[in-house]
Amino acid sequence: MSAFHLETGGLADGRQILYFNTTPGAGRASFADKRDLGDRVSAGEIRYDVLRDEWVAVSAGRSSRPLLPVACPLCPSGGDDLTEVPAPDYEVAVFENRFPSFGGFSEPGPLPPAAVAGMETAVPASGRCEVVVFSDDHDASLADLGPERVALIVRAQAQRTAALSARGDIAQVFPFENRGVEIGVTLHHPHGQIYGYPYVTPQTRRHLDANRRHRAATGRDLFDDILESERRGPRVIAENDHWTAFTPYAARWPFEVHVYPNARFADLTELPEEYIDAFAPLYLEVLKRCDNAYPGEQMPYMAGWHQAPVAEDRELGRLRLELVSIRRGAGKVKFLASSESVMGGWVHDLGPETAADMLKGAL
Amino acid sequence: MSAFHLETGGLADGRQILYFNTTPGAGRASFADKRDLGDRVSAGEIRYDVLRDEWVAVSAGRSSRPLLPVACPLCPSGGDDLTEVPAPDYEVAVFENRFPSFGGFSEPGPLPPAAVAGMETAVPASGRCEVVVFSDDHDASLADLGPERVALIVRAQAQRTAALSARGDIAQVFPFENRGVEIGVTLHHPHGQIYGYPYVTPQTRRHLDANRRHRAATGRDLFDDILESERRGPRVIAENDHWTAFTPYAARWPFEVHVYPNARFADLTELPEEYIDAFAPLYLEVLKRCDNAYPGEQMPYMAGWHQAPVAEDRELGRLRLELVSIRRGAGKVKFLASSESVMGGWVHDLGPETAADMLKGAL
Repeated sequence: MSAFHLETGGLADGRQILYFNTTPGAGRASFADKRDLGDRVSAGEIRYDVLRDEWVAVSAGRSSRPLLPVACPLCPSGGDDLTEVPAPDYEVAVFENRFPSFGGFSEPGPLPPAAVAGMETAVPASGRCEVVVFSDDHDASLADLGPERVALIVRAQAQRTAALSARGDIAQVFPFENRGVEIGVTLHHPHGQIYGYPYVTPQTRRHLDANRRHRAATGRDLFDDILESERRGPRVIAENDHWTAFTPYAARWPFEVHVYPNARFADLTELPEEYIDAFAPLYLEVLKRCDNAYPGEQMPYMAGWHQAPVAEDRELGRLRLELVSIRRGAGKVKFLASSESVMGGWVHDLGPETAADMLKGAL
Repeated sequence: MSAFHLETGGLADGRQILYFNTTPGAGRASFADKRDLGDRVSAGEIRYDVLRDEWVAVSAGRSSRPLLPVACPLCPSGGDDLTEVPAPDYEVAVFENRFPSFGGFSEPGPLPPAAVAGMETAVPASGRCEVVVFSDDHDASLADLGPERVALIVRAQAQRTAALSARGDIAQVFPFENRGVEIGVTLHHPHGQIYGYPYVTPQTRRHLDANRRHRAATGRDLFDDILESERRGPRVIAENDHWTAFTPYAARWPFEVHVYPNARFADLTELPEEYIDAFAPLYLEVLKRCDNAYPGEQMPYMAGWHQAPVAEDRELGRLRLELVSIRRGAGKVKFLASSESVMGGWVHDLGPETAADMLKGAL
């Protein structure tokens, strides 16, 4: 169950495509991309926001990206239908995003400067944006794919984390899935993405700072203490020998599930095989509970792996998955307006225990 | 032009209502609220998020609030139509939100503790949430109301900032307007809100920290340096002797306009009368430019006054207004998905200079 077979190929504009196969010798990378794509699109720059102390990518090229295109670019190619995936079938495929927010340059760039002087500082938006296609079945959903496929996807995410971490221009790797038109998903074919950021993201910096303070004050790891506290509490959604899924005490989103491995790992590259195998059925259970919370309504969600940075403060980070949803009632979504979006002042409308009880009862 | 006449009354469930009038003796507060509203609704608690180092309000009562109700509760009362505003007409009315995220308790509560120990800490969500109705004309928009009304609204926001700052349970006052169904506005009658938070919001803390570091490193104020830099740059949208409106160098939202007074004030309570009078026509110009950016499409926006905290780090703060929009093209909005919402990794799709040029050309 643990092995995968990697084939690496290229697309017409020079982007890389990788096939993650459960069987050897599939030969998928041998199919050529017959499209005329013109020059490849590179990301723009990242600018330093002096007031918020964070980097912002400026990527004008992305505004031309397709909005629900007629033909699905993630389906396999076949006959005259030439897509982003040249092979006629596949299990899991990963390729560089054609309209990247980060990267796409011919050479990996440098990380942004650690200290910024002056009001206007910009460097090229180095890094990498990848698309991870979960299945060649356009109409599938991750929740339907079964544990073997989920495990293969996690192994692909782990391989990509290792590869992107080795490039030298990436500070943090974030594998994630956006699902649902309610959060702006433009392609319904089941897929996720991976962002290799050239900086440590603002949210992750906050988590690392909190752990630094907690360790100094208590001598204990903050994530250990959170997990221990939540495992004793009323908001555990699902668990097995290797993983615990819970709605956190101070949840911000109407539905929010954090999935922690029961031991501490920095990122997916450190995750043992048996943890990956144990993650798959547990995560499928979480997804099914989410989809059953409001009968007849798939839950829109954002789910991603929080990983330790590649280098800076790596020892303070901890691997876990967080899934959040804007669904706040039957047919209702929570909009993030001024308080949340502008000030960071969040209001939980349901109450974390109520939301957790709904998920616990939804199977 | 500078005077206003304040009348204070009450609603059926004990909430306060205030009328800001340009003429004395209007007698609006003498109209009684004839509805049977039952007990008043109080906010819940705020919980401390140990991982993000921020407070989250848990307010289960809000989930029953109306979603585009049939009768507008912000229109004046008349005949059998009993609304949140008992008077038969008004200029600007302010009342406590019936479904508050903060406050509504019989007594103002304490501020949250400065230091938190343990994984689960909660205190009552003290503070106050107010609704500011800009006009008794249901179909008006702030941009249509004219400079005298805009000045009266700012004077009302200043009076409320002073009153809420004096309560003792409020750390920061945030007057804001959400406009547009695209960002979830449920009442189309022109109105804004005021949140009196029991904590200094996460975003404001970041701004204060940035200014603290900047002052230590340079001896200068960060906001002064930003304003000076932007006034020399290519992204000024509108200006007069007292105010400068610009799209910032590292804008995060597709359209983003920051409106700074040309001198430093902590909050609206310090703003001189001539600044208020000069703000009104300039802000109306900004709003008209926004509405003209995509012909035939009102721009959805969030606009709010960033003010210094009531006490903590007050000397590091600075009054200015920020207006941001998710409009990213004709008929297109930007969704904040995993990178922005979860990691704080923002991507600007248009480019700040392009967006600024569109606003500069839109009148």
